[in-house]
Amino acid sequence: MAFQELQWYDAIKLASPFPYVLAVTVDENNKANIIGLGWWTIAGWDPPMCAISVGQARYSHKCLMANPEFVLCFPASEQSKAAWFCGKKSGRDHDKFAEAGFEKLKAKIVKPPIIKGCSVAFECRVKSTMDAGDHTLFLAEIVAIHGDKDKIGHIYTIGYEKMLRFGNDLKVEPNLPE
Amino acid sequence: MAFQELQWYDAIKLASPFPYVLAVTVDENNKANIIGLGWWTIAGWDPPMCAISVGQARYSHKCLMANPEFVLCFPASEQSKAAWFCGKKSGRDHDKFAEAGFEKLKAKIVKPPIIKGCSVAFECRVKSTMDAGDHTLFLAEIVAIHGDKDKIGHIYTIGYEKMLRFGNDLKVEPNLPE
Repeated sequence: MAFQELQWYDAIKLASPFPYVLAVTVDENNKANIIGLGWWTIAGWDPPMCAISVGQARYSHKCLMANPEFVLCFPASEQSKAAWFCGKKSGRDHDKFAEAGFEKLKAKIVKPPIIKGCSVAFECRVKSTMDAGDHTLFLAEIVAIHGDKDKIGHIYTIGYEKMLRFGNDLKVEPNLPE
Repeated sequence: MAFQELQWYDAIKLASPFPYVLAVTVDENNKANIIGLGWWTIAGWDPPMCAISVGQARYSHKCLMANPEFVLCFPASEQSKAAWFCGKKSGRDHDKFAEAGFEKLKAKIVKPPIIKGCSVAFECRVKSTMDAGDHTLFLAEIVAIHGDKDKIGHIYTIGYEKMLRFGNDLKVEPNLPE
C-alpha cells in the first residue's frame, strides 16, 4: 500500500505498540484507584518529570483534581491480565485493587500507594496541566523512584485493542555506527 | 534483586524500550531540521493531539519557537541508521536531511516537510507549552495524518543508548479474557 492520508485510529494503531502503564491515584476519600494508560511520556531530565494524558470523563481525572499526585507503575509481564483489567473498568463501579488482585505498598512521599510486584514505580506530583481537547495532560515531577532491576519485562498496547509482552527474550541491538 | 529505590537513569532504562520518532521543524530561514525523540505521547483523541518534550538547549527548540509546527515521523525499520544519526547530531552544525540521506515530501498543511519513506507522519501545530525543567513540553494538534499501512516496523530506544527494531515478526497477543 502506498504512503497516503490515514484515518486517526488507523494511524494510532500503526504508530503502536506503546508502553502500557498503570497510574494509581486516590479519590477525595483517599480510596486508591488505578487507570491503564497508553498515553504518557517522560518529559524532563532535571528534575525528573513525566506527563500523563487522562480523559476528562475518567474517574481518575476526578481523583487527580482532588489530589494532584499519582504513582506511575510499570506492570511486570506476569501482571498483564490484572493490568489489562484496570484499563477496561471504571473506578466509579469497581475497587480495582481488590478485583485485580493487586496488593498495595505504601509510597515514600505521595498519598497513592504503589502496586506491589511492578517493575518500576515513579511517585509523581502534578506541577501543571494543559487542556488537550477531551483529555487533560498532567505534567508532574517524579519525587521518588523504585524498581526491581531484574524485572525487564513490560507490556505494550496497540490502540488499546491488543497487547504484547516483552520478557527476557527481548532482542536489543547495540548502537549503530556513527 | 529486590524492589528498591532506583537512580533516575537506571529507572529510565528499566522503563524502556520507548518508541523512537523524528520531529521535523524549520528554522527562522525555513531550513528543515530533524530531532530524534524518545519522549513524546499521543495526548488527545478528539481533536487528535500529541505532545513532544524537547530540551531547551536543542536547536529544534529554537526552531519550534520561531515556527510552532512540526511533523512527527515514525521511521521505518530500514531507516534506523539514518534515524539514529538524527538523534546524535545537532542541526546547528549539520544539515541532517542531506547527511542522513533523507528525502523531503511537501506537507499538506504545515511548513516543515515529511521524511519520505517513514511509516506514519503527523502534521502538528503547537497549541500550548509547559516548562518541564530543562525541557519544554509542546502540546500540538495533529492537523493531517499520512502513512503506509504495510509498514508496521518501528524503532525503539532504551535510554538513547541502545535501539531495537520491530519488523513483520512482531508477536502480538490477542486481548486477554475479561
